[in-house]
Amino acid sequence: MQFLSDNAASVHPRVWDAMRAADAPDSPYDGDALSISLDEKMSSLFGRESKVLWVATGTAANCLALAAMVQPHGGVVCHEEAHIEMDECGAPGFYLHGAKLLLAAGEGAKLTPDAICAVIDPIRDDVHQVQPDAISITQASEYGRTYRPEEIAAIRALADERGLSLHMDGARFGNAAAFLDLPAGEVAGAVDALSFGFVKNGGMSAEAIVFFDTALADVAHYRRKRAGHLQSKGRYLAAQVHAMLDGDLWLENARSANAAAAEIGGACADRLMHPVEANELFVRCTPEEREALRQQGFGFYDWGDDAARFVTSWNTREEDARALAKAIAGL
Amino acid sequence: MQFLSDNAASVHPRVWDAMRAADAPDSPYDGDALSISLDEKMSSLFGRESKVLWVATGTAANCLALAAMVQPHGGVVCHEEAHIEMDECGAPGFYLHGAKLLLAAGEGAKLTPDAICAVIDPIRDDVHQVQPDAISITQASEYGRTYRPEEIAAIRALADERGLSLHMDGARFGNAAAFLDLPAGEVAGAVDALSFGFVKNGGMSAEAIVFFDTALADVAHYRRKRAGHLQSKGRYLAAQVHAMLDGDLWLENARSANAAAAEIGGACADRLMHPVEANELFVRCTPEEREALRQQGFGFYDWGDDAARFVTSWNTREEDARALAKAIAGL
Amino acid sequence: MQFLSDNAASVHPRVWDAMRAADAPDSPYDGDALSISLDEKMSSLFGRESKVLWVATGTAANCLALAAMVQPHGGVVCHEEAHIEMDECGAPGFYLHGAKLLLAAGEGAKLTPDAICAVIDPIRDDVHQVQPDAISITQASEYGRTYRPEEIAAIRALADERGLSLHMDGARFGNAAAFLDLPAGEVAGAVDALSFGFVKNGGMSAEAIVFFDTALADVAHYRRKRAGHLQSKGRYLAAQVHAMLDGDLWLENARSANAAAAEIGGACADRLMHPVEANELFVRCTPEEREALRQQGFGFYDWGDDAARFVTSWNTREEDARALAKAIAGL
Amino acid sequence: MQFLSDNAASVHPRVWDAMRAADAPDSPYDGDALSISLDEKMSSLFGRESKVLWVATGTAANCLALAAMVQPHGGVVCHEEAHIEMDECGAPGFYLHGAKLLLAAGEGAKLTPDAICAVIDPIRDDVHQVQPDAISITQASEYGRTYRPEEIAAIRALADERGLSLHMDGARFGNAAAFLDLPAGEVAGAVDALSFGFVKNGGMSAEAIVFFDTALADVAHYRRKRAGHLQSKGRYLAAQVHAMLDGDLWLENARSANAAAAEIGGACADRLMHPVEANELFVRCTPEEREALRQQGFGFYDWGDDAARFVTSWNTREEDARALAKAIAGL
Repeated sequence: MQFLSDNAASVHPRVWDAMRAADAPDSPYDGDALSISLDEKMSSLFGRESKVLWVATGTAANCLALAAMVQPHGGVVCHEEAHIEMDECGAPGFYLHGAKLLLAAGEGAKLTPDAICAVIDPIRDDVHQVQPDAISITQASEYGRTYRPEEIAAIRALADERGLSLHMDGARFGNAAAFLDLPAGEVAGAVDALSFGFVKNGGMSAEAIVFFDTALADVAHYRRKRAGHLQSKGRYLAAQVHAMLDGDLWLENARSANAAAAEIGGACADRLMHPVEANELFVRCTPEEREALRQQGFGFYDWGDDAARFVTSWNTREEDARALAKAIAGL
Repeated sequence: MQFLSDNAASVHPRVWDAMRAADAPDSPYDGDALSISLDEKMSSLFGRESKVLWVATGTAANCLALAAMVQPHGGVVCHEEAHIEMDECGAPGFYLHGAKLLLAAGEGAKLTPDAICAVIDPIRDDVHQVQPDAISITQASEYGRTYRPEEIAAIRALADERGLSLHMDGARFGNAAAFLDLPAGEVAGAVDALSFGFVKNGGMSAEAIVFFDTALADVAHYRRKRAGHLQSKGRYLAAQVHAMLDGDLWLENARSANAAAAEIGGACADRLMHPVEANELFVRCTPEEREALRQQGFGFYDWGDDAARFVTSWNTREEDARALAKAIAGL
Repeated sequence: MQFLSDNAASVHPRVWDAMRAADAPDSPYDGDALSISLDEKMSSLFGRESKVLWVATGTAANCLALAAMVQPHGGVVCHEEAHIEMDECGAPGFYLHGAKLLLAAGEGAKLTPDAICAVIDPIRDDVHQVQPDAISITQASEYGRTYRPEEIAAIRALADERGLSLHMDGARFGNAAAFLDLPAGEVAGAVDALSFGFVKNGGMSAEAIVFFDTALADVAHYRRKRAGHLQSKGRYLAAQVHAMLDGDLWLENARSANAAAAEIGGACADRLMHPVEANELFVRCTPEEREALRQQGFGFYDWGDDAARFVTSWNTREEDARALAKAIAGL
Repeated sequence: MQFLSDNAASVHPRVWDAMRAADAPDSPYDGDALSISLDEKMSSLFGRESKVLWVATGTAANCLALAAMVQPHGGVVCHEEAHIEMDECGAPGFYLHGAKLLLAAGEGAKLTPDAICAVIDPIRDDVHQVQPDAISITQASEYGRTYRPEEIAAIRALADERGLSLHMDGARFGNAAAFLDLPAGEVAGAVDALSFGFVKNGGMSAEAIVFFDTALADVAHYRRKRAGHLQSKGRYLAAQVHAMLDGDLWLENARSANAAAAEIGGACADRLMHPVEANELFVRCTPEEREALRQQGFGFYDWGDDAARFVTSWNTREEDARALAKAIAGL
């Protein structure tokens, strides 16, 4: 019973079907009908004009989005535990040509205007210090927390005031939307670009960069090719995105994962380091307790010395979630 | 009847099967059983110890291989019509951090020791000029020409003499091997790294970087992640590579494409700009002739003003190849 | 009697004087009075609003100017023998983050609209090929040739038509101006930025980047610091630039160097590979003839197998020029 | 009476003299006699084989040294208040092609093995996180603190254990040496490269990168040119370094600056945020007190809300130091 991560789960049958249906030849790269129609479908979902680029990974999505916003001598404000800082092997340094991540603190791996100001206000307005060009937030955050619309609006207002672009890493955007139970456009808020993740949510190898500031998409088109991310059989990636959007599969899958997480969280509320607002649980437990859980067949990562991280997936079985809930309760 | 390119053809059924078979969860990234076993399978194929990294595109494969060989202040000798120079949107400049492509001439888009020396001998051995670190050749070349083992050996000898690494872009390596009818190890020769292409040969989204100089693979592992090319569900890429190698599907597919090209080439030998040694044909024909072919339903690219390029695929139908052959003969 | 280059000549006494006069403490970096007043002085010289940044080398000047014009995924059209291509160790690749130099041919190392079009017209307007962002020309060229105002105007018109920026490498701008005998503004023409060289013309360690498209200067200010070129005692560089401009020392020195070159050129017109329009001479001569000249005490560089390059300096003595002229005539 | 910084002070007369003496033409770049002889002179000073490159700024020195040690996908452990982190506009990101600064805490802007371990021990040994390649320490530190030989030795031992290179930013190395009163070799310890600063210590525009790991110098030679830092009249920079080393002018100047700082520090020991071990003083004082000092004609920077920074120079006059000491004491 694996709760290691949602990043290696099986692919949803409807995604497989859509990929197979894309097997007939079409134009290469993103000239095929499926790729071309993504702009319209995503614009409709978000209620804003959108330009969409598929890529294979969240790292590529984040970095290509940011590269369109940030000058090589600029900086990006992000949380000190953001994925772009912690888990991308310096990819932002590569894609942004040495631009700097400016690290802010914040509960639950979430940023606030105050936390952002604490980072950027002390920056002297001179050429000796790296000036910020953008802010990046994660929805849901690295601790499975979600931003409410008014929280994003406050960050957007600050960004506008300071002339900064705003990016959202939505590797688990579906889980946030499912939890918030709000339209996609409100879950994203007025960001300039969203890395809309599908791989962790039942897809195979397709994420979407959604540019709401559509002028940024032109640069990103070149940068995607330059980064070796313009696949010639791109229709198989576009097909995945379509499958996830059609019939709101992305929400259906996310709800399923969230429900499993809620089931588990409900059984160990006193142990939770963070409220469960998506599909990740950070549970205080001793090494001995973790060993006991592993003995019972549960897979998960240690989170420091005193906690464990459990992640549910679109296809986590209810009985497995219940079993884990029971096992933790029984510790 | 499309002869535009092999880069958007359908995926071979055995590749689909292998991908479906990989659907059961396994470790993420390249920690799964399929990814892990690639080293051994490729070592066996080439008869040399090999380290293998899958990536989604040939551009990523080429650039990650070269990035492990070339310093940012160094250079790569390649043909002036090489894919890395002409068709990758400056990806080598990105991945190699500004290193320079040093362009050599050569018939059929092939390099020779003399052509390489013509580029590197005039370089002064001082800090004012970019010094070469590597050579990159393409097998089969951008004009569908193949390197014989002795030609590669001569380039290897020069590389050794000058302390240069040697890379092979094998986007159509299968087609070269099928034409040369030699073991894979001889088709690659003693290169340090091979971009072994499968996407143009019946795969979907997996190429293999095969490091024969295995020390280079360590750097490439980090750089792949840093470039956003380490997919979390990497087992679906590994599965594609396995499917292509199992039962020598890569050769079977390439032979099929080559046979179609040979059929066409046989009907227009006097019009060929280059001997047909793989699955590409460069055929002299007037704009009017091209229009006539298009009227008959053939799809292809113009090649300058006076020629057309036709590319066959693993699934080009015999009757289509025959029809094209007949149509060109009848011009 | 050295004719190796003008790049290591002594510093002009008036430059020394200006540097000594700058010894009193002032604000660091470019906050001192001398640095601040450069904009106005240069604006006056060129008759256009100008923003000026000093740097220590021509390589830094060229690359910082271009970095303000060119995106990392873009390109710069330049002559295949341009200094940025041949003699800067790949500095453009470094400063421009992997952007590409697109090489054009042209007599006398000069570009023409036709030569530029021959490079950029074949570039497909798609993401697979590097798109040009700028053109760079050299005044006087690497072969000591000058652009007439109408030649620059024609290139400017093409640049405007194609949406390209225009940079001028003026390492020997003074020599061009002295030869053309035109106002500085006409010698520069309507370029967006000029690398105005002084080191080869009697300065020590200061070149000026003159931005006529003043919006570009803001980026360049950050990039200069980021490149380690913002010297804290910048007033000593600003002082050099002032000294060169005051009383038109830059023209006086260039005229002196040009006169020496003309003296020599007049004695060997039949041997000249290029008309002498600045302070460089490319003279056909056999190895034996070169040996004979060296025996007589003349220092110079071989230029391939069949020629020699002689460069005069601001302080080349008339008698030395005459002696060389006589020696060549006597071969 | 300026105590703003030592970075814009006048140039020492003996430095001027040496520059003037270098006015006779010699080979360009670093082929002149003065540049060539630096290796030997520096080897003698440090008692270790040394390779020396002059550059114009400390930023260039730091970044070129680190670029020879660190891979683009690697990292550098430094103090969170290190100059490379705080005051170089992201130059390390530029020169190191996106490599990451890994920030450690530590009293007095000094690193300790424990502080370094606190940063690098949590880094997972996988491709998702940036791996450290080097450590950079500052002697004297950004708070004017010095490392004792045993402190450097402990860091060196850790570096060796972890396979890391060790760099020392010696922008104020002279002040550290003067304070410690130890041979240069002990003040530097067993670092692999030292940025030996002269500009803040009476020079004009020359710093020395001293490579004790001499294999690193080869890469740095190319990178210096590529960064536009190889000045053609390099002999004027070499002359400055010689002047500073001859007769131990670097120590004489530093002792003078340190003495002035000690004078001031002695008068306000209870206000000092850090012990005075070089030529910088961080003095607690209210805004009103700072205003009072400025009224008396003293120039200095605020250091946050509750302190002021005073820096003495090689040519700070004794009476000025005494005046400041008295003024602070009288607050």
